[in-house]
Amino acid sequence: MSERRLRTVGLLGGGVIGSGWAARFVLNGVDVRLHDPAPNALEQVQQQLENARRAYRRLTRISLPPEGRLSVAESVADAVRGVELVQESAPERLELKQQLLADASRTAAPETLICSSTSGLRPSLLQADMDRPERFVVAHPFNPVYMLPLVELCGGERTAPETLTRAADIYRRLGMHPLLVRKEVDGFIANRLQEAMWREALWLVHDDLATVQEVDDAIRYSFGLRRAIMGPFRFAGGGSGIRRFMQQWAPTLKWPWSKLTNVPELTNAFLDKLAKQADDRGETLTTLQIEQQRDDCYVALLQGLRSQGYGAGETLALWEQGLRDTSFQVDDGCGPLRMPPAQMPSDWLDSNGHVNESRYLQLCSEATGTLERYVGVNSEYRSKCGAFYTVETHLFHLGELRAGDRAQVLTQVLGAEDKRLHVFHVLIREADEKPVAMAEQMLIHVDATTRRSAPVRGEVRERLLKLAERHAKLPRPERVGASIRQR
Amino acid sequence: MSERRLRTVGLLGGGVIGSGWAARFVLNGVDVRLHDPAPNALEQVQQQLENARRAYRRLTRISLPPEGRLSVAESVADAVRGVELVQESAPERLELKQQLLADASRTAAPETLICSSTSGLRPSLLQADMDRPERFVVAHPFNPVYMLPLVELCGGERTAPETLTRAADIYRRLGMHPLLVRKEVDGFIANRLQEAMWREALWLVHDDLATVQEVDDAIRYSFGLRRAIMGPFRFAGGGSGIRRFMQQWAPTLKWPWSKLTNVPELTNAFLDKLAKQADDRGETLTTLQIEQQRDDCYVALLQGLRSQGYGAGETLALWEQGLRDTSFQVDDGCGPLRMPPAQMPSDWLDSNGHVNESRYLQLCSEATGTLERYVGVNSEYRSKCGAFYTVETHLFHLGELRAGDRAQVLTQVLGAEDKRLHVFHVLIREADEKPVAMAEQMLIHVDATTRRSAPVRGEVRERLLKLAERHAKLPRPERVGASIRQR
Repeated sequence: MSERRLRTVGLLGGGVIGSGWAARFVLNGVDVRLHDPAPNALEQVQQQLENARRAYRRLTRISLPPEGRLSVAESVADAVRGVELVQESAPERLELKQQLLADASRTAAPETLICSSTSGLRPSLLQADMDRPERFVVAHPFNPVYMLPLVELCGGERTAPETLTRAADIYRRLGMHPLLVRKEVDGFIANRLQEAMWREALWLVHDDLATVQEVDDAIRYSFGLRRAIMGPFRFAGGGSGIRRFMQQWAPTLKWPWSKLTNVPELTNAFLDKLAKQADDRGETLTTLQIEQQRDDCYVALLQGLRSQGYGAGETLALWEQGLRDTSFQVDDGCGPLRMPPAQMPSDWLDSNGHVNESRYLQLCSEATGTLERYVGVNSEYRSKCGAFYTVETHLFHLGELRAGDRAQVLTQVLGAEDKRLHVFHVLIREADEKPVAMAEQMLIHVDATTRRSAPVRGEVRERLLKLAERHAKLPRPERVGASIRQR
Repeated sequence: MSERRLRTVGLLGGGVIGSGWAARFVLNGVDVRLHDPAPNALEQVQQQLENARRAYRRLTRISLPPEGRLSVAESVADAVRGVELVQESAPERLELKQQLLADASRTAAPETLICSSTSGLRPSLLQADMDRPERFVVAHPFNPVYMLPLVELCGGERTAPETLTRAADIYRRLGMHPLLVRKEVDGFIANRLQEAMWREALWLVHDDLATVQEVDDAIRYSFGLRRAIMGPFRFAGGGSGIRRFMQQWAPTLKWPWSKLTNVPELTNAFLDKLAKQADDRGETLTTLQIEQQRDDCYVALLQGLRSQGYGAGETLALWEQGLRDTSFQVDDGCGPLRMPPAQMPSDWLDSNGHVNESRYLQLCSEATGTLERYVGVNSEYRSKCGAFYTVETHLFHLGELRAGDRAQVLTQVLGAEDKRLHVFHVLIREADEKPVAMAEQMLIHVDATTRRSAPVRGEVRERLLKLAERHAKLPRPERVGASIRQR
């Protein structure tokens, strides 16, 4: 990678794609000069930039560089003069793009890279009227440009090889994944695949086989999840894996399982090519390892979507709700409340190989949540009355948990007053019932409307007092009220 | 939903799909009777069950019901006798499936549901020779069955409507998303869409436009991420949104951007149908809200994949590495150590809408990690000498952080002895420099070999003592040594 940082780009076109580029550049610290004849172009760019700022705040905890400056250029010449890269994102009309690129090439400095965002027009046609066409390349991104990493790079007949290298380097630094398209073809690679599916989707609706909603659901609850992880060719076992698969499914290619009935003949030569390319990947994982990697990715995707309550994540949440309804029980026999056991997932480990200290507090925090539900704090109470907020925690570490260990929190209410709740959690490992951590917590009841401390209300109050009374008879943990002492 | 829980199923076929079904059933507490003539069928089922156990341990922390029992049935009759549901997952050969389903229908109890996992054969053909064909339905899942939620339900000419309702209810309880396919068609809905893309993918490799690796990369770094969230028809603005889109992109349907050049004519009637179906969804979100929801889902997917170091998540990690290289510094001027600022991601929120209490400890834990690196604890020191383990934390909450807030930890070393390290963290919000949390921590130095407390060694010790000496001149935080007191 060259060491020079991109400083200024000229954008031609500020539609959905141009705006997305503007956002990616600006948030990576690059100045942007935008030219677009539409009167509301700047407004659209600013809206997308705002979306991107919001998304990047959530995406990473690393500090971004100072934002680049966004300015409007009144002409193509003003937009491209003195910049290091021109990104053209005009509508998909060949003559329009040819003219724009030719104009840009006459004003831009000779070393300026000139790139087109076209979704499918051939670079050789686009560079036809340019000065110095060797520095032109198609750099095709995906909407939203500030979010999706792929950028397809495709040179035309007159593109110089180093143009592709320079462009790949620049886009990689912007957090993208450049993919070199080896031959010119309408639609490049990704869009040809998307277009085939899109056309089939139109047929499904056209022929009344499915509604637009059903088409969308059929995708996002099934193979759509797979496509976020892998394309259709990832089989365990390299070449032999792909041969096995093709052998099993070859007959179905002749069946009308899609409108695309014109399919390549599965000759031996074609099979050999597929198998060789699969071998060439140099995959070193075993079948089992590939399956586990795939499953770990699915778990990560499903948990991510669950956090958004969306699509397949909503299905997961519904399933968990059903499990909780039948399995969820707080054991409130005669001792402290025994919370449902939990298993330590592998992504909770830290560099010492055991569960990170913050996860012990998370388990205690969840136990407090369970205690809240146990005394009747539900979503209605939360929105109308209030909830408990932790003000202080004293956490003691007595042992370690590792991935796969099951552990359970025992919670004792030490005191419940008007506005305050004092609890003590003991986290025990299920295997040997030994305590691995303890936490003393003080919580305060906060009113839903005023957001200030306020007394607990109604039935929740009664249940809590009854529980506190029962727990007052239990022995008081000796660490209550301790302070950290420097010996 | 009916209240009766599924207890026993008969599985015909234990290949990839049958094994996946076995895993989903068993882990949901359903007994499984498996019939498969292949000698290694049970082994394959047990392997997939093991994969599924591993995945579910990571997927949810809710306790699963006790596992169902998996047993082998020597004949079709033994597998289906007395079960509530039969799931056939034999190879895609029409006569074979017809025969199996007919056999099963003669032995199974009259009320037993009989379902086929076929990827695309029509239910009317499959049910042709069955007794009581009205209780037959296609229930088509996706590999891995224990992971992906969609199940397409498609009845044949002789299927009773209540069969579809019963089946949907059963699969929903297993954590799946049933989709009713309204008309019989080869390949149903999802597979027709997949097949179109798959066939196009084969052409790309066949015509040397891309390798199998390039096809896979083109998908997983781009629109593959989109497909995990939505299908191709989700546009903001309902019917008017789809009209705008179709108008803009209509010309490209005539272009050879895929091999599927046979496309539906975009008549006014077809456009009206698309628009009406989009309106019928009753979408209530604004364009901006849809964009933000979409972006939040992308963030969740990308962060999930980053935790696996895979695909688009690897691209994100590379970008962050680049940002860190240019931005990471501990400011050790004259006050406490100022750690690099961090942004609060949306998945750190709890039900109160602010950052969960455990994340404050996580930030302090990371600050301790940065302090360790600052005094020279690197991976070599960790493996040869040791590292610091937290034994006690006293955490104080003074304010709240929300998604997008930036915050920074200031760390003061209160004391460093032979084996002990005493620190105080103050977490401040960047916007107003106000403290939102403080934590007093006692750590102990643990020897890498003996795993017991041991003195800090060599240069790390020197640097730590020097730092402690410098920090001893700073004012001592007043909360040091406090205990939680019940007022």
